[in-house]
Amino acid sequence: MRATDVLHILGGLLLFLAGALLLPLPVALWFDDGAAGAFLQSALISLLAGLALLKGFAGGRELGLREGFAVVSFGWLLYALFGALPYLLSDAIPAPVDAIFETMSGFTTTGSTILSRIEPLPHSVLFWRALTHWLGGMGIIVLSLAILPLLGVGGMQLFQAEVPGPTADRLKPRIQDTAKLLWGVYVLLTAAEVVLLMAGGMNTFDAVCHAFATLATGGFSTRDASVAAYDSAYIDAVITLFMFLAGVNFSLHYYALRGRIDSYFRNEEFRFYLLLTGGATLLIMLFNQGAVYTSLADNLRYSLFQVASIMTTTGFGTADFEGWPVLSQYLLVFLMFIGGCAGSTGGGIKVARILLLLKQSFGQLHHLIHPRRVYLVKLGNQPVPAEVLQGILGFFALFMGVFVVASFLLAACGLDLVSAGAAVIATLGNIGPGLGSVGPVDNFGHVAPLGKMVLILCMLLGRLELFTVLVLLLPSFWRR
Amino acid sequence: MRATDVLHILGGLLLFLAGALLLPLPVALWFDDGAAGAFLQSALISLLAGLALLKGFAGGRELGLREGFAVVSFGWLLYALFGALPYLLSDAIPAPVDAIFETMSGFTTTGSTILSRIEPLPHSVLFWRALTHWLGGMGIIVLSLAILPLLGVGGMQLFQAEVPGPTADRLKPRIQDTAKLLWGVYVLLTAAEVVLLMAGGMNTFDAVCHAFATLATGGFSTRDASVAAYDSAYIDAVITLFMFLAGVNFSLHYYALRGRIDSYFRNEEFRFYLLLTGGATLLIMLFNQGAVYTSLADNLRYSLFQVASIMTTTGFGTADFEGWPVLSQYLLVFLMFIGGCAGSTGGGIKVARILLLLKQSFGQLHHLIHPRRVYLVKLGNQPVPAEVLQGILGFFALFMGVFVVASFLLAACGLDLVSAGAAVIATLGNIGPGLGSVGPVDNFGHVAPLGKMVLILCMLLGRLELFTVLVLLLPSFWRR
Repeated sequence: MRATDVLHILGGLLLFLAGALLLPLPVALWFDDGAAGAFLQSALISLLAGLALLKGFAGGRELGLREGFAVVSFGWLLYALFGALPYLLSDAIPAPVDAIFETMSGFTTTGSTILSRIEPLPHSVLFWRALTHWLGGMGIIVLSLAILPLLGVGGMQLFQAEVPGPTADRLKPRIQDTAKLLWGVYVLLTAAEVVLLMAGGMNTFDAVCHAFATLATGGFSTRDASVAAYDSAYIDAVITLFMFLAGVNFSLHYYALRGRIDSYFRNEEFRFYLLLTGGATLLIMLFNQGAVYTSLADNLRYSLFQVASIMTTTGFGTADFEGWPVLSQYLLVFLMFIGGCAGSTGGGIKVARILLLLKQSFGQLHHLIHPRRVYLVKLGNQPVPAEVLQGILGFFALFMGVFVVASFLLAACGLDLVSAGAAVIATLGNIGPGLGSVGPVDNFGHVAPLGKMVLILCMLLGRLELFTVLVLLLPSFWRR
Repeated sequence: MRATDVLHILGGLLLFLAGALLLPLPVALWFDDGAAGAFLQSALISLLAGLALLKGFAGGRELGLREGFAVVSFGWLLYALFGALPYLLSDAIPAPVDAIFETMSGFTTTGSTILSRIEPLPHSVLFWRALTHWLGGMGIIVLSLAILPLLGVGGMQLFQAEVPGPTADRLKPRIQDTAKLLWGVYVLLTAAEVVLLMAGGMNTFDAVCHAFATLATGGFSTRDASVAAYDSAYIDAVITLFMFLAGVNFSLHYYALRGRIDSYFRNEEFRFYLLLTGGATLLIMLFNQGAVYTSLADNLRYSLFQVASIMTTTGFGTADFEGWPVLSQYLLVFLMFIGGCAGSTGGGIKVARILLLLKQSFGQLHHLIHPRRVYLVKLGNQPVPAEVLQGILGFFALFMGVFVVASFLLAACGLDLVSAGAAVIATLGNIGPGLGSVGPVDNFGHVAPLGKMVLILCMLLGRLELFTVLVLLLPSFWRR
């Protein structure tokens, strides 16, 4: 590990963060909410720290693999630390571990919160909270479609191969171009949602913040009651649509915008994602009809919203699903594990991995009765190399391993069995709300500081596909 | 599928069951418990059904793979059906689905029960209950060490390679010899436990029944309070020791009995099994000390017993662990998933699979920073083929898939989230007691008939390593 190069780049990333910290400034001045100073100070501190790293450590050499891992992991961590400054300095969130929790939840597009009341916060702080989602989502798209495949993390190279085009071959010299294209799509979709939300009567501020949180599949709202506060079927429909879109591989949106709408349906992961969303909604509607909703339209509205919100790991709420029939809750819990498509801003295990697992088991069953026939697992029309399948095995093992250790630590902090497990899944899957004492109408504020730190780490691990962070724990990573 | 050959062999298996059904007869006569007629009738029915199949369908051709799967799956199912006759005919368990549940739980060495009170049952029926465990255990040892590897099920061929000797090369013509050797070990260990239990003051009947249930890692007791009824540190110690031994690959016992005691420690899976048992016991003792037990000796006695009972999937109880600290409970739940060693009578995912998963993830992390270095996953000193690792991936996927579907169905029968999940794990892992409403001091009697049928299937699926049963669901299995 060449630490100097890494520190140099981290300095550059901090300068970018300093710039981002100035964005809420106009909001603070417009609403005269008293938090302008906090953002100025935060930006200044980040700027100075960034300059110190940039100038103090020489850079410029090409990065190796290890440096790549270090930049991604520590970069995200640094953003959570410095991004927490406005919360602390504005006194919106006075406890440092709470502020870092909220920021990490923002940048990882998780959406878990320690706040019991959101509306009393200054507008600029709420804007920053939504902005962390949006910037995190930008980071994730480039990370999952360009950087992680380059680092060879956990079978992600496969998801790239599945979507040829801007992200495929000879990617390396073009990370910047790829990033620009995908960000263009991201910005366009965000703008479209803002316009549509405003057309439904939402004010500009709320529309921008909710669009940020939707496209990032984050879930931070500006209202205590989340999206339920607007009580509008139109707004629910718009947000449902954009949550669904945010859970799709952004390369497909890029193709669609260039006129190739059929790219969606030619993509096997998308088709499965659509099937899962539709199937789960139908089943949940079946269970909810009569039991919770008498009108079919209401049932569709609330069930589809919740399925899209959980499946894409956004975490917005329009209904307290802990009051739904047990079977509906069960389905929602399983959807939590699945998550969005690869190359989307969604978290979870990812639709492509689930699809490959199903194919692998089906193939093995067939192999048992036809031992001499070779059964190749394919995604799209491409055979999946054994290495990639083993990568998924490793991913699952690590996912379960982290789940076991983290939920054990949460239980040690006093959470009951269900809440501890749900808290870990909600953060490791970058979902947001969990079940039990961290359920959709509760928050993470009551968790002990040690537990919050564990969950902060879970958010980071989940967002960076586990491997990227865990590799730092190997002693050989640090050897020269 | 050549159905006639399969039916012919199933007839033969029924004849063997008819013989087994006569074994409780002396017990019935000795205790004059009024159930002799039930066993005679059951044996007669099985004999006639067996003869009908044996004579009605021609056999004798060598079995293909498909016929092998059919014999194993339907054989176990047939045993659960005909083995339920004594419960029904003696009126000990009047409801057919309950009787089949209890029998399947016996033969699969699960140990889940629908009975709220055990002691009022006739002695011969209790003996039959324990005997189903013991015979099921016999079946499992041969199945996992000789038959499943031959059928190529789910990486089981690996566990066989890891333990060379009676089960290794040129196994096919010698299944019978292998079976005899391993059964010799099984009978010897059972006899040793009977003697040791009687030395501690247990009566012959209880000693035999408990030894049957221990060596099979079953868990059916003859007492309502399970092993706690004896309240003897000596008896707890004996049963703990034999539960631990029953969770070990029986090939290793064979070597040990032939003088090669070092075989245990040269086996990597055994070392890991020992480490897990010891580590979990130490941690649980740490949490229990002061909170539940004041004396260190008591703490060791109850904690070690419970760890061995859960880890080996036996399910005997000497303490209500739902009253233990949450952290102790957490560890026990994780142990439930792990289960015993391959080639033992224990259920669960199996220690070897967990070990390979850990190695696979560790290897992948290393591969990330040394992409050009080849990292081979090894067990013992043998590299594990990619095919076997993919087999484990498929196993996990199916395990999770069955878990999702089955626990959903249990929830549909009205169980709460925790109880539904725990009921499925308890049966799919062949453990016995679960948590919540199917916890260690409760039983499965209150589950709706549909739920019981799902759990009966779960026991069968878990016991036969999933693949063996699921392969029957493929349409191509039934094509000529």
